[in-house]
Amino acid sequence: MKIVTYCAQPWGPERLGFLIGETIVDALGALPRGANAAHFADAVAFIRGGSAALALARLTIDHAPASARLAAATVQLCAPLRPSTIICAGSNYRAHNAEKENTPLSGKEPEFFIKTADCVVGPEAGIVYDPLLTQKLDCETELAIVIGTPGRHIPVANALQHVFGYTIVNDVTARDRQVRRSPEGFTWYELGRGKAFDSSAPLGPCIVTADEIPDPQALMLRTRINGELRQACSTAEMIWSCAYLVHYFSINFTLKPGMVIITGTPAGTAWSTDTDLGGKWRGAPGLVAATRYCLPGDWVESEIEGIGVLRNPVVSQPA
Amino acid sequence: MKIVTYCAQPWGPERLGFLIGETIVDALGALPRGANAAHFADAVAFIRGGSAALALARLTIDHAPASARLAAATVQLCAPLRPSTIICAGSNYRAHNAEKENTPLSGKEPEFFIKTADCVVGPEAGIVYDPLLTQKLDCETELAIVIGTPGRHIPVANALQHVFGYTIVNDVTARDRQVRRSPEGFTWYELGRGKAFDSSAPLGPCIVTADEIPDPQALMLRTRINGELRQACSTAEMIWSCAYLVHYFSINFTLKPGMVIITGTPAGTAWSTDTDLGGKWRGAPGLVAATRYCLPGDWVESEIEGIGVLRNPVVSQPA
Repeated sequence: MKIVTYCAQPWGPERLGFLIGETIVDALGALPRGANAAHFADAVAFIRGGSAALALARLTIDHAPASARLAAATVQLCAPLRPSTIICAGSNYRAHNAEKENTPLSGKEPEFFIKTADCVVGPEAGIVYDPLLTQKLDCETELAIVIGTPGRHIPVANALQHVFGYTIVNDVTARDRQVRRSPEGFTWYELGRGKAFDSSAPLGPCIVTADEIPDPQALMLRTRINGELRQACSTAEMIWSCAYLVHYFSINFTLKPGMVIITGTPAGTAWSTDTDLGGKWRGAPGLVAATRYCLPGDWVESEIEGIGVLRNPVVSQPA
Repeated sequence: MKIVTYCAQPWGPERLGFLIGETIVDALGALPRGANAAHFADAVAFIRGGSAALALARLTIDHAPASARLAAATVQLCAPLRPSTIICAGSNYRAHNAEKENTPLSGKEPEFFIKTADCVVGPEAGIVYDPLLTQKLDCETELAIVIGTPGRHIPVANALQHVFGYTIVNDVTARDRQVRRSPEGFTWYELGRGKAFDSSAPLGPCIVTADEIPDPQALMLRTRINGELRQACSTAEMIWSCAYLVHYFSINFTLKPGMVIITGTPAGTAWSTDTDLGGKWRGAPGLVAATRYCLPGDWVESEIEGIGVLRNPVVSQPA
């Protein structure tokens, strides 16, 4: 099942929907009489509703009247959910690690940083280029895990049972805030300041439930900027698997329905071509090296097999 | 005005209240007939309501019937608000910087890390000691700024106009996750993993509106653990003032009503006595050096002049 959040009118209230091909079924509009509307209040309520909410969704889709079916092209998708916490893994692909400056911990444990709902924007929403924050705005396509079943100290073997589904995130990064180099060539990471800011977490276009993605380590991931292929890699290349990351982050947090874990990005960032920040472009068949960081007017497409394409423009001002 | 969130019964729904001496006025219970109940839905709604909500609160308090007045001692306070993002400054007191390992950026710019609503617990709630996460659980009393008026790129001169009020946070830290030392003595900070986890942000006991704290740089701050005075310092000793931090973090985020900025901790952490992690205890008149990190059974009191005392036990399991 593909779950979306959308606005029927620009700036209208956000509504839960189910994406069936090119059609969106409006969840509350199609809700069978007498059924529990609370499950469809928003995506986090839906996820919290567990198997009862999923069963209700199937019934709702099967009996949706024509009045509750909309052409997807006529509505504005929003971020598919508003996660209270986005726990972020970094340095999780070897080829990406080879193209950048690493730290004493790189390859030994996942990097750990945090984004929040205040970083999230939806499909087609602008990624703000703010030169006072950064002049090295970089994009990173990543698989995002949406937690369903709560848990803490989740064993790796059970971890995928806690996953509700998957979506796509663009882990937008202020590279000149993240990477600091001293005159002696000493590299320091400021993952706080370089990773968490307005529009630093475009999310979407939909959540695909876990039953439709039997192996999250076998998905092709691609980034195109203005049509140029910048990243192309399978999630098989992750150093730490989705299951391991769910386990690992559940040592810090009791994972809760609607929390999101993002899993790191493969090679091909603009950083790799930025020798001032220690970048070492390695290339790969089909990949186009960036000639600059992102600027207003660019369009970024983050695609993951089985989920879809998350498209966002870079803009100079928020809408 | 002092704003609280409380439960009249254990595990009951959270309610907004106003603290008047030893009495809580229940906001919705005392709401004048015909007034806008939406302002009192929760603390973030109240803050978002701005001067209209504050005026309504004054009217509500003045006309509260006896049935809407509770003895504060009979209710359980909760965290006074659930911030979507807690933006955290670190290394903001010189005497604290002198007692610990620093980084190439220390003293040059505020450290920047993130906590979220999933880290927050209220007064009297347990700080969980989880030995699988950390065996070096440390506490840091800090002044917390609650944002009222939204803004981005806020000039320092106007910054305090964006402040709704102040509360207290204990910036609970997993020191052995935060500070990593290589065999060569190289120190690395993992502020993500060492700072963001369950119960890592006790918050409370109340929000004091900014009109009652004309100078946030003139407040005595104290930490007592099991009655021992561990920290005692004025907020005058901050390297970067509250106004500067509001400005600084508004470069990353459009600050929104209910977002929280925490301002760093003074000298006296347990870290300062931990030579394995580079601690350098400096002492100060009246301060008691820690002989160990926190363990279940400890009680931590974080006090700030004009706001109150935030008390939390350290526990081995969440309630």
